[in-house]
Amino acid sequence: MARRRARIGVVAPGGRIEPELATAVTDLAGRLYGARAPELLFHPQCFLSSGHFAGEDAERTAAFLDVANDESLDALWFARGGYGAGRLGEAVLAGLGEGAARKAYLGYSDAGALLGGLYRQGFAHVAHGPMPQDLIREGGEAAVARALAWLVDRAPEAVEPSARTGRTAAFNMVILASLIGTPLEPDLSGHVLMLEEVSEYMYRIDRLLFQITSSSNIRKVAGIRLGRCSLIPENDPDFGLSEEEVARYWCERSGIPYLGRADIGHDAGNKVVPFG
Amino acid sequence: MARRRARIGVVAPGGRIEPELATAVTDLAGRLYGARAPELLFHPQCFLSSGHFAGEDAERTAAFLDVANDESLDALWFARGGYGAGRLGEAVLAGLGEGAARKAYLGYSDAGALLGGLYRQGFAHVAHGPMPQDLIREGGEAAVARALAWLVDRAPEAVEPSARTGRTAAFNMVILASLIGTPLEPDLSGHVLMLEEVSEYMYRIDRLLFQITSSSNIRKVAGIRLGRCSLIPENDPDFGLSEEEVARYWCERSGIPYLGRADIGHDAGNKVVPFG
Repeated sequence: MARRRARIGVVAPGGRIEPELATAVTDLAGRLYGARAPELLFHPQCFLSSGHFAGEDAERTAAFLDVANDESLDALWFARGGYGAGRLGEAVLAGLGEGAARKAYLGYSDAGALLGGLYRQGFAHVAHGPMPQDLIREGGEAAVARALAWLVDRAPEAVEPSARTGRTAAFNMVILASLIGTPLEPDLSGHVLMLEEVSEYMYRIDRLLFQITSSSNIRKVAGIRLGRCSLIPENDPDFGLSEEEVARYWCERSGIPYLGRADIGHDAGNKVVPFG
Repeated sequence: MARRRARIGVVAPGGRIEPELATAVTDLAGRLYGARAPELLFHPQCFLSSGHFAGEDAERTAAFLDVANDESLDALWFARGGYGAGRLGEAVLAGLGEGAARKAYLGYSDAGALLGGLYRQGFAHVAHGPMPQDLIREGGEAAVARALAWLVDRAPEAVEPSARTGRTAAFNMVILASLIGTPLEPDLSGHVLMLEEVSEYMYRIDRLLFQITSSSNIRKVAGIRLGRCSLIPENDPDFGLSEEEVARYWCERSGIPYLGRADIGHDAGNKVVPFG
């Protein structure tokens, strides 16, 4: 990629983004990289609106495939999470062309539904990491810069420290649990699995970890690392266990090694975790 | 059962109940049945408290097995939902004795995690239906009376109309989705599957139905009927589809026949759905 500017297509399989955000992210890339700034091609679909989604399923699917199958692009960057990527899974997987597997794919949260499906298909450059919408977080420039550092240069310092060697994957807990038993469920045998969550009650985190650690497929992981669980709503009565106690409990019950914390979460500190 | 009074053991694998509730339900049974009122044996575990749960996992498991394995009891009635039944699945299934399969099991919502596991084990008298805690609902006496009518007499009028013939099962959506891929997941091939939900955002109902209808196991059902989805929180932006539109959408995509509505839900009108 030293020969020419990286070309990155941006699509929004879940919620929409504002055009101003696209401009701000492009400006940031220019300030960070100057003449070698990546070309960011925000697909017009990013700005569509259809109820909960950035356009109808068919529009979001077409945009995803436009970018995934464009041989002139180096990467597909998910614009944001929200909800909606999983709805496109079947049509996206059916429509991917030969060149799609050579591209990098970066996103997290809801995007994990499609990242899981792509990884299941054998795609080698799928990663959990920050998205353009993270720019509006406090400290969000650092998150977007980290994503660009991975997309443009595969910069090692953008990557979660324990993901720099060995096989890894990272998911939001709700999203990974929702893929179990579906055609989007990835094979994570032998991987260190990193899990993060946001805005879920502790009893729900417990139930999600029950399902994740009870799945015969996921029990083949090499171990689990717990990312940050943020904005946990207060529960009445108090659940009585922290997220780390819950994670240790389910790992012990299921025989999965608990390997400690992971530096990922719904925040500006969220690191990149390449799959595989 | 005409020869002697039915004997029904009550346990609380999820949240606790108040002792006054046990008294009120026993009083109601006396008023409804007089001399042939069922004996209701509320296990002392129902009134324990441990954070979120009616006692520690070990206490709840022991109480469940006390009742399930007691040959003098005709039925095990779940006291209420909440959260916690799934946590006991492994230990409960490992501890069930010979006589446990002859007993009836009645509950819904969180109880579905254990009902699913029991049904998977081949238990023949497992049913979705009202629980003692339903007494505190508006109109709750009718719900509890309906549960007793099924427990004492297998009264046909207590049963959801479309569940009076053919093979059926009923679940809360979150609970059934959480069982997929786990040792508690039931085999629902050829069953009419009834699904209800409460207090979930419409985008979450959509995601739950994605997972349920995408599971290769669940795709073997004979069809889906949609129970009531109540207390759906408002969403910004509005999801744009009703629960029935969402159910029809996922049934169509997955090739599962959509069979209309079911008379079940988190309310006093909730009918009994025997499994099988």
